[in-house]
Amino acid sequence: MSDKQNIPVLACRGNTLRYEDGQVIILNRKKLPWETEYITCSTYEEVARAIELMIIQGAPPLSYAAGYGLALAARSVRGSSPEKVLKAIGQAAERMARTRPTGSDLWYMLQDLLDLAEKAIKGGEDVEASIVRHVTCQMTRGDEVAEACGKNAADLLVDGDKILTHCFAGAAMIWMLVHALRQGKKVELFATETRPYLQGARLLASSAVQLGVPVTLVTDGMPGYLMYRGMVTKFVTTADIITLDGHIANKVGTFQYAMVAQHMGIPYFVLGYGGPDPRANGVEDITIEERDPQEVLECLGKRTSVEGVRAYYPAFDITPPNYVSAVITDRGVFPATLVHKYLGNEFTLH
Amino acid sequence: MSDKQNIPVLACRGNTLRYEDGQVIILNRKKLPWETEYITCSTYEEVARAIELMIIQGAPPLSYAAGYGLALAARSVRGSSPEKVLKAIGQAAERMARTRPTGSDLWYMLQDLLDLAEKAIKGGEDVEASIVRHVTCQMTRGDEVAEACGKNAADLLVDGDKILTHCFAGAAMIWMLVHALRQGKKVELFATETRPYLQGARLLASSAVQLGVPVTLVTDGMPGYLMYRGMVTKFVTTADIITLDGHIANKVGTFQYAMVAQHMGIPYFVLGYGGPDPRANGVEDITIEERDPQEVLECLGKRTSVEGVRAYYPAFDITPPNYVSAVITDRGVFPATLVHKYLGNEFTLH
Repeated sequence: MSDKQNIPVLACRGNTLRYEDGQVIILNRKKLPWETEYITCSTYEEVARAIELMIIQGAPPLSYAAGYGLALAARSVRGSSPEKVLKAIGQAAERMARTRPTGSDLWYMLQDLLDLAEKAIKGGEDVEASIVRHVTCQMTRGDEVAEACGKNAADLLVDGDKILTHCFAGAAMIWMLVHALRQGKKVELFATETRPYLQGARLLASSAVQLGVPVTLVTDGMPGYLMYRGMVTKFVTTADIITLDGHIANKVGTFQYAMVAQHMGIPYFVLGYGGPDPRANGVEDITIEERDPQEVLECLGKRTSVEGVRAYYPAFDITPPNYVSAVITDRGVFPATLVHKYLGNEFTLH
Repeated sequence: MSDKQNIPVLACRGNTLRYEDGQVIILNRKKLPWETEYITCSTYEEVARAIELMIIQGAPPLSYAAGYGLALAARSVRGSSPEKVLKAIGQAAERMARTRPTGSDLWYMLQDLLDLAEKAIKGGEDVEASIVRHVTCQMTRGDEVAEACGKNAADLLVDGDKILTHCFAGAAMIWMLVHALRQGKKVELFATETRPYLQGARLLASSAVQLGVPVTLVTDGMPGYLMYRGMVTKFVTTADIITLDGHIANKVGTFQYAMVAQHMGIPYFVLGYGGPDPRANGVEDITIEERDPQEVLECLGKRTSVEGVRAYYPAFDITPPNYVSAVITDRGVFPATLVHKYLGNEFTLH
């Protein structure tokens, strides 16, 4: 596993997103794993739609796309008065903030870029270029965080682990597997397909196959039975937001699996990337995105029921800290209720 | 709701299955709710394949189909020696027993028909006709059991109940809703889509729409969140087999939802139709059917991941009695651990 070429495309965000001459170019995750298609956005509105349609997804990646979207907004008013430039960027940021409200990376990205734009104008710098530089730098930093988090997770695995996962836990999950293989640990995955968007089947399972990690797909109704039968040794997901008191918002389904895991004595590890959201004290600070119910009424574009059936699509759920064995970050491993220590870096178990 | 015409087709098994002049005619549930197609089987092997392919499903309905399959076997050797007739029926019964091993109705149907065939031969009666008469009679009796079970369940509902259900709980679920409406109780359903076969979306949700019961479809990952949010007041499923000590085998997914329900203080009621399996003492007597993994790798005929991904398809899971609030049968309501009392009819709570 020292062969870099085997590392799946989704491990490095630069493979999936770039800014090029007034265009944001995004790998279309909805077509993975069957097609490698890049879409091109020339306006911030197009980027916002790409995020809403989940052409790019995952809390950090979509925040980078939104950031590049603000660069497009700056470019569209190049040469205008400072007021007009700031207004255009402010409007674009408001639009981006509405795309997907649950993950915290997006909010921080937008705040940072609004501050940065103001400074750039004051300093007489090119606003578009400043934004692009910042986002690209954040993306590189994000990749480092993902790899460090994944490496720390790999350290907690043991040879023979059978790891249940849900949705696509992002670059850190891929790095966890890469480092486990480098450490000579043979691990296997059970992947939920993760309806309605099938991230588990499409993104996670195909990345695992590329790495040579055995992966068994199950439907979202099956994890409880796998755990009951003793077929799982660890449950690992990521989080879209972690609160300071240790609540985890992640792809809907996580909570029910975490509860079963706890009752079956199976550790539940959260890939926490860059730690908790400093402005989220507790569950009251989590906004659960409710998406278009139409997505639940279809599978791969085919309708599953009759007219007259309603649907409901909460995209995330909330797992209280008492169901979480540990939060694994780039800086080490934390008990969920002490995850706020990440920010002070005073206390790690790792 | 006194209008009989509104009652969904799946409430009465005679609508979905009949024996006619050497043919078993089966409503193709795989095409519901979009098409009303009947398939015709002329050999017991064709009936066995229809059961395996889930053209007919549900523990009681598939046992009736298997029974009619034995009539086809008897017909194919009409006029032969008693030994040859019994051998043919025995072979057909062995084939049928292998189709779907979890539900207990099939086993009893086959035993009864083997005994019946022997008696018919001794009594000089037509074996095919005797089998058809017995199966048709059992089907009528089964419909009565389903309606009585559904009525007893309706009595436990209250106005405003928001009922989570999983898979298609069969005729008893429809009768529960019919009687709740007749009793003037307004209830709502949350239906899991129930991958991979989508019984919740296709069979349950469309039946509810036909009855005018509001039904909201969710993916199999969402029940935990619904319960966490307080959106559900009761969880109701059926069972494919109930053991004498109160274990429930039902569509995979049931166990994880039952566990969350218990922890959220939400009652879990099992529609137990004609009670426990007298020959199943406990969990060791349950055989969990493992179906073709290919079915998990597809949704409505479309593949969801790449080559190299394995899959696993346990069709059922097991819920221990401590997660079951009550088993509702045609004879009344039982605590799960006392469900064996059904057989003696000594003790009911109802």
